[in-house]
Amino acid sequence: MTPTLEKAPAMPVNLPLPNPADLYPVPGVRIGVAEAGVRKAHKKDLTVVLIDEGASVHGVFTQNRFCAAPVQVCREHLTSGYGVRAMVINTGNANAGTGEEGLIRARTVCIALARELELAPEQILPFSTGVIMEPLPHDRIIAGLPAALADARPDHWLRAAEGIMTTDTQPKAISARVNVGGAAVTITGISKGAGMIRPNMATMLGFIATDACVAPELMQRLATELADGSFNRVTVDGDTSTNDSFVVIATHQAEHPTITALDSADGQALKAAMLDVARQLAQAIVRDGEGATKFITVRVEGGKTSDECRQVAYAIAHSPLVKTAFFASDPNLGRILAAVGYAGIADLDQTGIDLYLDDVHVALKGGRHPAYREEDGQRVMKQSEITVRVVLGRGTASDTVWTCDFSHDYVTINADYRS
Amino acid sequence: MTPTLEKAPAMPVNLPLPNPADLYPVPGVRIGVAEAGVRKAHKKDLTVVLIDEGASVHGVFTQNRFCAAPVQVCREHLTSGYGVRAMVINTGNANAGTGEEGLIRARTVCIALARELELAPEQILPFSTGVIMEPLPHDRIIAGLPAALADARPDHWLRAAEGIMTTDTQPKAISARVNVGGAAVTITGISKGAGMIRPNMATMLGFIATDACVAPELMQRLATELADGSFNRVTVDGDTSTNDSFVVIATHQAEHPTITALDSADGQALKAAMLDVARQLAQAIVRDGEGATKFITVRVEGGKTSDECRQVAYAIAHSPLVKTAFFASDPNLGRILAAVGYAGIADLDQTGIDLYLDDVHVALKGGRHPAYREEDGQRVMKQSEITVRVVLGRGTASDTVWTCDFSHDYVTINADYRS
Repeated sequence: MTPTLEKAPAMPVNLPLPNPADLYPVPGVRIGVAEAGVRKAHKKDLTVVLIDEGASVHGVFTQNRFCAAPVQVCREHLTSGYGVRAMVINTGNANAGTGEEGLIRARTVCIALARELELAPEQILPFSTGVIMEPLPHDRIIAGLPAALADARPDHWLRAAEGIMTTDTQPKAISARVNVGGAAVTITGISKGAGMIRPNMATMLGFIATDACVAPELMQRLATELADGSFNRVTVDGDTSTNDSFVVIATHQAEHPTITALDSADGQALKAAMLDVARQLAQAIVRDGEGATKFITVRVEGGKTSDECRQVAYAIAHSPLVKTAFFASDPNLGRILAAVGYAGIADLDQTGIDLYLDDVHVALKGGRHPAYREEDGQRVMKQSEITVRVVLGRGTASDTVWTCDFSHDYVTINADYRS
Repeated sequence: MTPTLEKAPAMPVNLPLPNPADLYPVPGVRIGVAEAGVRKAHKKDLTVVLIDEGASVHGVFTQNRFCAAPVQVCREHLTSGYGVRAMVINTGNANAGTGEEGLIRARTVCIALARELELAPEQILPFSTGVIMEPLPHDRIIAGLPAALADARPDHWLRAAEGIMTTDTQPKAISARVNVGGAAVTITGISKGAGMIRPNMATMLGFIATDACVAPELMQRLATELADGSFNRVTVDGDTSTNDSFVVIATHQAEHPTITALDSADGQALKAAMLDVARQLAQAIVRDGEGATKFITVRVEGGKTSDECRQVAYAIAHSPLVKTAFFASDPNLGRILAAVGYAGIADLDQTGIDLYLDDVHVALKGGRHPAYREEDGQRVMKQSEITVRVVLGRGTASDTVWTCDFSHDYVTINADYRS
């Protein structure tokens, strides 16, 4: 029933394992992880994140209309006016496609954690990831809370990155330090996700915390801009998840004057450092994309708007024919032109289009470049990191999307996932 | 470099080989096939279709903005005012992404065939299918024309179906007879295509001929309505080809009063019979989809408009996660709900949605149906023909799309295609 293909040892593309020593604790944040047996025994599947009073917490969530129960509860709690003090994250079950009962169970988990912490339920954000349309085993999650709370420590970011993995082959965590207003500010984030990845506002799960002091009214815009520059630019299979959630936490514990404008010098420094972390976390999801053997940057330039550039970039990044050609290292590059052609730009003129593969000029004005030699395309296609650059020749806008190739292992993983 | 997975013997899904005795010649149409060595030796790769004077020939073509040179030449010739008298079809090379030189070569082939037949070049329609962005070997095609012409006979439809194959595993041809105005009218058609299939106005290549007498001014509408009810409702991989072409030929040689309205009794009878042929040809492409092991009908009902139903149906039909679950016979049906959710209907209410797999009621009002049992879903998923039915619960419109599953062989075929 399931395919018999032997799995190659799964390896992300140029993604080093995080070194615990490189992951800086963020003052004001503690993390605990436990094995709650949500779906399988002996798996870290329950994570709690405890946040000091006074922090700002903002999020962006999936645009999927079938959004999961925890996403709906997060939205309610974030607009409740209570300050968020904790997050609870389970793997093994997405609590999506579960109807009214799913909402009740997500709220029940929040109530249980609130009771342990002497908080209001609205101060808890719940997150779930895993199989869709199966009832959440909330009793097991609640039974696991005391162990997770007992485990809570500031230096448990790597454990958290492990605790939120599903089909990920390795944990994803990044830290950075940046000087803001004379103080060293810490930024640490984690993410997870390998399939059902085409985030629309956010990824499966991404969390970034900083001790920076940011005026609360700037935080939602900061979260949105970070998501737009990172998680909203990656795709593995074009399937926008029901559970995408990206949360930014600022504990305001660093000793610098509060940032009151994102375009101030301090605001720009912080945002650039946070964007770098967010982008690395988002790209880590692609590097560890299900079955991925290559990391592809698709850059589209010369468009009338960045929206149309992104539209073309996604058409290329989602084409199964383009993705299988990358897997095979086959410079069958006409498939890229075909994807450009069907991307949906009604007045696109094919005679204005150029195509580059890294430094190799493949197509000139819609046709094969006279100097293009197959062996040059072949050389680039064999690399593990490839940049596809399309120049539309109709404007000055550009945009970039990151994706991976499409291999036998993607089929194997997704034909086996629930087994 | 290319994957080492052993290919399973490729087999279309419930698609019997055409029996030559069941393929009726269409008075006014003759077909010849030759081996021109376009890409490989000893392969039938050149087909000419000769059409008697007085026939009506109309077509619909790809909406891909990177449309191939022959598609551009077809459009020119069809609007030139000359009556079409012949078609020339090569496989092995798509003549797409070939710039100005590609147009010149397509026209050169038409000129050569026109010279052989003592016609104007505008009376020839050229078609190409195969690899994109490689120069068309027009000299070899022209050199092959005399052999193809010498082969021309009315009963060569099966040879034509073979002559236009690329990654198809078997020829696709259908015939029907229908009584129109007291006369037996013949309809015979062929199609090809297995990958880069998500026709937008037409399929890779589809040709239907009839000897019916149809008022010429009705023909374009007839061609469009046939395409919309058949080729424009199938998808293999979501990649809209550069070369999609669907041509309808009416030779007007049957002995019945000319049809002057498609909604007359005769018009309806003819259109129903032609639509049935077109739909079988379109579905044959899906049944022979690259790596296909299952034929899936995706029906979406209860929408506000048929457009939004089709949008949801395509989201399901294109989801790699849904398609790999079908391949694995794994009733991981939450993936279908996720695709419904990201299909792009902004005001979709998940609590109104029901999901059926054949007769099994899987989801009720957005959640798992209380009576749904995994073994019932499993039973349907194991079948080779499956109907997914989604009820949106917001209107009375509906639409249907046909697709196939996503298997290891799809990756193998597309990682190997040019080798």
